Amino acid sequence: MNNYTFEEINIGLKESFEFEINEEKMNLFLSISNDINPLHNDIVFAKKEGYQEKVVYGMLTASCLSTLAGVYIPGKRSLIESVDIKFIKPVFVSSSPLLVEGEVIEKDDRFKRIILKYNIYDNKKNKVSRGKMTIGFLKGE
Amino acid sequence: MNNYTFEEINIGLKESFEFEINEEKMNLFLSISNDINPLHNDIVFAKKEGYQEKVVYGMLTASCLSTLAGVYIPGKRSLIESVDIKFIKPVFVSSSPLLVEGEVIEKDDRFKRIILKYNIYDNKKNKVSRGKMTIGFLKGE
Repeated sequence: MNNYTFEEINIGLKESFEFEINEEKMNLFLSISNDINPLHNDIVFAKKEGYQEKVVYGMLTASCLSTLAGVYIPGKRSLIESVDIKFIKPVFVSSSPLLVEGEVIEKDDRFKRIILKYNIYDNKKNKVSRGKMTIGFLKGE
Repeated sequence: MNNYTFEEINIGLKESFEFEINEEKMNLFLSISNDINPLHNDIVFAKKEGYQEKVVYGMLTASCLSTLAGVYIPGKRSLIESVDIKFIKPVFVSSSPLLVEGEVIEKDDRFKRIILKYNIYDNKKNKVSRGKMTIGFLKGE
């Protein structure tokens, strides 16, 4: 886990990591959310809608943003203030592992917070999601 | 699970539901995300930062948005295109159950999609999160 202070972070700082999606995580996300929507749970329904597999919950893919902030940038001192997510392409279990890339694009000295942009790619290098996060800083002592 | 078509949805349509957060969901979210940040996992660290309990992962709270779209508005035909989330106040296991409220604020006839605004409240009626979602429609047949 990284432990960047606000002062140590420069615009352009990048981190990336792989994020696994599998059937078990789909089941865990169903337990957490109770989202029983058939697009994520019924292969027959998903195929009728034109997908070759069940579609991974968008908010399950987005759970990697917790890790991007809390483990990578800035790591230990992370306090997420806001998150914007665009879903670009569907994600399937067969798209795993995803590649998550974050980059600092802004530092706000007044409020001591940073803005990250991020991109998420599937294992064929298609961009599946992109967005921004605003992250404040804990004392972290 | 609701099954609204685009045509059936009017601006002002509202749905709400309770969403439980507990220690088990915290552990499941850790398994999904691998976000080992101590704010969510170490009561001693959380207390040093001024919180009375471990802080619930923001993206765990946000998992209810999957359910808001996929089960409530519009339900079965939901295809989430984008999500904006503002975290306003920390959530704890003791804040559970959360109340999730969604309301349709815009219909886009050209692209057949809706915009929802949502608010999430803790069990003391504090607003803990708010934001918007853009949602498209599956055929749903």
